[in-house]
Amino acid sequence: MASESKVVEHPKKAFGWAARDTTGVLSPFNFSRRETGEKDVAFKVLYCGICHTDLHMIHNEWGNSIYPLVPGHELVGVVTEVGGKVEKFKVGDKVGVGYMVDSCRSCENCDENLENYCPQHTVTCGAKYRDGTITYGGYSDSMVADEHFVILIPDNLPLDVAGPLLCAGVTVYSPLRHFGLDKPGMNIGVVGLGGLGHMAVKFAKAFGANVTVISTSPSKEKEAIEHLGADSFLISRDPDQMQAATGTLNGIIDTVSASHPISQLIGLLKTNGKLVMVGGVAKPLELPAFSLLGGRKLVAGSLIGGIKETQEMIDFAAEHNVKPEIEIVPIDYVNTAMERLAKADVKYRFVIDIGNSLKEST
Amino acid sequence: MASESKVVEHPKKAFGWAARDTTGVLSPFNFSRRETGEKDVAFKVLYCGICHTDLHMIHNEWGNSIYPLVPGHELVGVVTEVGGKVEKFKVGDKVGVGYMVDSCRSCENCDENLENYCPQHTVTCGAKYRDGTITYGGYSDSMVADEHFVILIPDNLPLDVAGPLLCAGVTVYSPLRHFGLDKPGMNIGVVGLGGLGHMAVKFAKAFGANVTVISTSPSKEKEAIEHLGADSFLISRDPDQMQAATGTLNGIIDTVSASHPISQLIGLLKTNGKLVMVGGVAKPLELPAFSLLGGRKLVAGSLIGGIKETQEMIDFAAEHNVKPEIEIVPIDYVNTAMERLAKADVKYRFVIDIGNSLKEST
Repeated sequence: MASESKVVEHPKKAFGWAARDTTGVLSPFNFSRRETGEKDVAFKVLYCGICHTDLHMIHNEWGNSIYPLVPGHELVGVVTEVGGKVEKFKVGDKVGVGYMVDSCRSCENCDENLENYCPQHTVTCGAKYRDGTITYGGYSDSMVADEHFVILIPDNLPLDVAGPLLCAGVTVYSPLRHFGLDKPGMNIGVVGLGGLGHMAVKFAKAFGANVTVISTSPSKEKEAIEHLGADSFLISRDPDQMQAATGTLNGIIDTVSASHPISQLIGLLKTNGKLVMVGGVAKPLELPAFSLLGGRKLVAGSLIGGIKETQEMIDFAAEHNVKPEIEIVPIDYVNTAMERLAKADVKYRFVIDIGNSLKEST
Repeated sequence: MASESKVVEHPKKAFGWAARDTTGVLSPFNFSRRETGEKDVAFKVLYCGICHTDLHMIHNEWGNSIYPLVPGHELVGVVTEVGGKVEKFKVGDKVGVGYMVDSCRSCENCDENLENYCPQHTVTCGAKYRDGTITYGGYSDSMVADEHFVILIPDNLPLDVAGPLLCAGVTVYSPLRHFGLDKPGMNIGVVGLGGLGHMAVKFAKAFGANVTVISTSPSKEKEAIEHLGADSFLISRDPDQMQAATGTLNGIIDTVSASHPISQLIGLLKTNGKLVMVGGVAKPLELPAFSLLGGRKLVAGSLIGGIKETQEMIDFAAEHNVKPEIEIVPIDYVNTAMERLAKADVKYRFVIDIGNSLKEST
């Protein structure tokens, strides 16, 4: 389903790095962005996080990538121009764009501020706007987006850490809130300690939870507890540890996107416990019905968050000092960063320093 | 794990029908019940429903049956004696007992009126009380139970239909309430049209829902709509019908205990939709994570209901005229009834007329 697409010449020149085919190798790319419309906000991109989804998309692993593909949906910067009917932003504001740049704006989901569940939402890169033109992401010098999909970054939140909150952050914040796993004193489990998982630990701690990290890697224990502030650590491959923790958790945020057993995770839940999957596991999971019946438990899924909730999340993060752990890299390191990300060799999110390293070479 | 057990001689003679081994054949059985304790209610059994669980238990399909096994956990009758500290009941009251006769009374679940999720709850038949004596169910002339586990049957609810509400009724009522699937105007699906399913249709209608029955059997459509009051009918094996109904339901109560695909059911749900399993499917289900993520959907389990909720359910049923469809049979028909139940040849619940047909033969 990957397709070449006729590049439309928009009036505003733009420059970024793009993957050209399924090799996923990124290289400099000249393209264009639309004129700033009445409801549009244009901004200079200063930082952009590297999400695991970028890795899937540059290799067309989901079969719907459009090349040339400029990745990046955790982009932040400073407003350079606003359209005549823009109400929420002014030139100079710190802003960002996350996973979506559009949705139908008229369905039941959109009406309820759940643009992320609108069947027609338009993702920030490698997709098509409703007019058929291509969306290019944040590995680029500039962005133009409808103000509805632009997030205001609070002044006290440094811009370099703001990007990953727009995708990784809201992806775990949203289910913690929606499924009522945000009450002080709750016991919350977090499976997987990558870009999403480490944010789940931080948000759950900010809500006042006792946080248990559940991992296959004993080597992560020290880091999880001493550095990220988790309260305890469970090695999922140790049956004795797992047995001892049976029925202790109110909820679990499962961030793992590789195939993995969930019945033992369900066993960790108390009555009314909730296992929420935020990783897109491709292979169907094995779900024993009895494991749910015996304690009115549930397995749910959650996908990023709506725009209103994303703004709430970033305001909460700024107020409670919830920041991702990042490794800042220049744009010409991006292919190496992708290789390291594929091996989970990053603590915990790469952020590209677009402002200081992206220079048009032509 | 099936075991013979030394029969304890209690002071009160009792008579019923019991299965003696895994053939499951029921025959007359003399046994005894405990003296009416301070907190106990004794009652003459008049009717007892036949639940599918009885069929599993007489054949020891779950590996934990204790023989001789007197089945029956949908028993109703009239109080004959109450202990000195009984507060809620008096001689002559119409009462019933459902799936449980005891629980630990001190755990978090018990504290929250969720005795059904107490890990130590004692089921009404074929199990052991805390003192080690055996529980005998409602295919018998009398019952003695702690008043906490006795339900008051409202005067305007006929006794013959009251029994099945105590198990089948609350098993579907509880998840409709707990998961917020009880709002007027909601679109609710019901999978399977047996003892549980037909009660789910009736309770959902009583809550004001639009009810869709989802079944593999086209032959059930007329009955579901004209007799039970469902609003529509979907044949789960018809891909066109299923496709046309994509994203239309707020929730589904899935009563099927045979292995069956659930991904197509998840597809019928709207954003935030809930698929609740109440049938104990033995084989693990295949759960595609993506199907949950795309609309923040969930798959949950639910097991009968707590005692407080069971009382609420039966009061609601009496007020809203929610009654199971029953076929009344004499006790000496019980083995035939079991054979027919195994073939799903009953609309929709057998109820044994204990009061008029159970006579001590010795």
